[in-house]
Amino acid sequence: MAVDVVESIHAMARDAGKAAARLATCDTRDKDAALVAMADALVVSERRILEQNAVDLKAGRAAGLSDALIDRLTLTGKRIADMAEGLNQLAALPDPVGRVNRGWRLPNGLDIKKVSVPLGVIGIIFESRPNVTVDAAGLCLKAGNAVILRGGKEAIHSNIVLAQVISAAAERSGLPANCIQLVPTTDRAAATAMMEAAGLIDCLIPRGGAGLIQTVVQNAKVPVVETGIGNCHTYVDSSADLEMAEEIAFNAKVQRCGVCNAMETLLVHSDVADEFLPRMAERYKAAGVELRGDEHVQRLVPWAAEATEDDWGTEYLALILAVKVVASLDEAIAHISKYGSRHSEAIVTKDYAAARRFENEIDAAAVYVNASTRFTDGFQYGMGAEIGISTQKLHARGPMGLEELTTVKYVVYGDGQVRS
Amino acid sequence: MAVDVVESIHAMARDAGKAAARLATCDTRDKDAALVAMADALVVSERRILEQNAVDLKAGRAAGLSDALIDRLTLTGKRIADMAEGLNQLAALPDPVGRVNRGWRLPNGLDIKKVSVPLGVIGIIFESRPNVTVDAAGLCLKAGNAVILRGGKEAIHSNIVLAQVISAAAERSGLPANCIQLVPTTDRAAATAMMEAAGLIDCLIPRGGAGLIQTVVQNAKVPVVETGIGNCHTYVDSSADLEMAEEIAFNAKVQRCGVCNAMETLLVHSDVADEFLPRMAERYKAAGVELRGDEHVQRLVPWAAEATEDDWGTEYLALILAVKVVASLDEAIAHISKYGSRHSEAIVTKDYAAARRFENEIDAAAVYVNASTRFTDGFQYGMGAEIGISTQKLHARGPMGLEELTTVKYVVYGDGQVRS
Repeated sequence: MAVDVVESIHAMARDAGKAAARLATCDTRDKDAALVAMADALVVSERRILEQNAVDLKAGRAAGLSDALIDRLTLTGKRIADMAEGLNQLAALPDPVGRVNRGWRLPNGLDIKKVSVPLGVIGIIFESRPNVTVDAAGLCLKAGNAVILRGGKEAIHSNIVLAQVISAAAERSGLPANCIQLVPTTDRAAATAMMEAAGLIDCLIPRGGAGLIQTVVQNAKVPVVETGIGNCHTYVDSSADLEMAEEIAFNAKVQRCGVCNAMETLLVHSDVADEFLPRMAERYKAAGVELRGDEHVQRLVPWAAEATEDDWGTEYLALILAVKVVASLDEAIAHISKYGSRHSEAIVTKDYAAARRFENEIDAAAVYVNASTRFTDGFQYGMGAEIGISTQKLHARGPMGLEELTTVKYVVYGDGQVRS
Repeated sequence: MAVDVVESIHAMARDAGKAAARLATCDTRDKDAALVAMADALVVSERRILEQNAVDLKAGRAAGLSDALIDRLTLTGKRIADMAEGLNQLAALPDPVGRVNRGWRLPNGLDIKKVSVPLGVIGIIFESRPNVTVDAAGLCLKAGNAVILRGGKEAIHSNIVLAQVISAAAERSGLPANCIQLVPTTDRAAATAMMEAAGLIDCLIPRGGAGLIQTVVQNAKVPVVETGIGNCHTYVDSSADLEMAEEIAFNAKVQRCGVCNAMETLLVHSDVADEFLPRMAERYKAAGVELRGDEHVQRLVPWAAEATEDDWGTEYLALILAVKVVASLDEAIAHISKYGSRHSEAIVTKDYAAARRFENEIDAAAVYVNASTRFTDGFQYGMGAEIGISTQKLHARGPMGLEELTTVKYVVYGDGQVRS
């Protein structure tokens, strides 16, 4: 690996560490003023941002990027205004830093409090959407962290100008330099150097597709929060209200299919499959959903393709749905335990015991009874913002808001106590 | 790496996963009954345990282990009774599983609760003390987790018999098989296979010296909680009550020096160094503490050795103390930020502003004002038990008790809500 790339990442991380030490003791109002200043700067710099975005779009079209990727990459006045609005909303949220999570007095008179403090230096490795530059930087800053952003090559010009605009605004408003830094190259070695910067980066959060996330999880020596892979199920129980089940199963697949909390497999109890599936299939067909089913499903829905073993484990992120008929709640739970990614799982049931068993036996970040998996989201949950959805169990699980971008410190006040 | 070692670790982890799924829904009283049964079984099996321990001790002496290591390895009737008592105490602690950490209702009527649930399968890689087998297994089990233990070769016979005794007792009392498993070999490949068992082991906790911990942190692809390295400081401020400072600085170094929360470097403000250090040094001398100081210290304490750059970064775990005179609180904070391991740091001061600054600017798991760093400990903090002291920032920081051996699950109850 190029030594100078590693050295430049380490230098950025050391600068970020110094900024983080100062940010950790910044008052909330100073951080909020900086967020508002960053929002204003984005709006003021619209022309400059769109010019740089046009460079990325031209290169993207020349490279033959799909329409979907070009759309993700595209900034408009409206999208810039939305990013600014996001920063203003962050400014209005409560500061997670300084919260006393617990506090108690020991028999020897020591007063202990467990206080939320910033994580320190957060690295974000992400793909093509340039808005992540602004969203992630804002979240990290509000929680008192310095951030090092490393985006994808398709958006490099957009990312550079966005980072310049917001980081200059933050500094002008009085925050320390280097709170927000963007790696100015998309050299793979830079990402690797970030993954290996143990002791310099406190937490690495990958945002993007399964490939990116697995690369980071497999190679990082820095602590990682794994986000985003969602192979989510909806199980329609034998006791389900079938009209409710139809609404939920339709919503979970169709309302927005390219996101991690969308349903990828529908499980239907055999007692209700004959009544439920043909009707449900018509609705999916009208919405352009391709079905892949087991033998029982194919008997009820002749136009459904045959599901292979691979289908049960696939996060389609598309209008494709795997469908399976199961003989029992046990079979549904076993299927989800085997193939699920522990993201979001739903049961539709009128049966109390079935709801209880599903709630307790399904191991996932979010478990739903009679609701769509699409609700797993920091905004929907009322957290005001999210940096991603953690599918790991350590540190944070489910939607990661500002609170999850902090750690704790025990502060102990005494009067000369020593241990005997 | 031997394929069969990897396969046997994977098989153990899969068995543990099945046990964990059942343990997660076990009632507290069943887990507590198992802990009491395990305690009873240890006492009943004393002779068998001591016989196997004697095999380890004989091999250890033949291999020339130091007296200190032989002492750590040695089991006695008293030590077995202490382990049993530890399990009985765990049975009496509140169950961390099932606690609703937060709960709220969304505007659309969805009821969300954030519930504590077990982590799943926990791997523990540890060194020579056989009591870790029992302590760690008890903690993991109480928090509803299955555990895979991998101990050091010096204690292999002791560990095997201890694991047999407690795991059989747990199973007899009705818990699922394979809640507690010990890797029956000390092959290095087995530890490596544990570190790489992503998706099969939910969390790996190394317990032991710096070498072991760094090996695990550097090589694991499984999420790790880093424990234990403590390069702790006590800073005697210009305003300190010097008698209090003397008691605290003595306690932090001498009360027990081989542990991670013991002080390794003493920082003294130059305003009080002339008065404080000669007196303090006499007391250390009488206790057999070797001092290594900077130039100023050597002038005041002629028998002190010269401190090198290495000394500032060393966790001695012995009756050795690095001593430095600093010109200001700023210099003290800068020194600690540069050399400290972010474990436990103390200031002795009468000055309100100095206390506030130290509390806020020192980045460590535990920050003390006018108290000994030796208090950083799950038992001292009133958690009832601990599996180690985390020096990382993700998931858990500071003493890790039962609560830190759990994760969360969002449970959402609805009435047919879909996302619009």
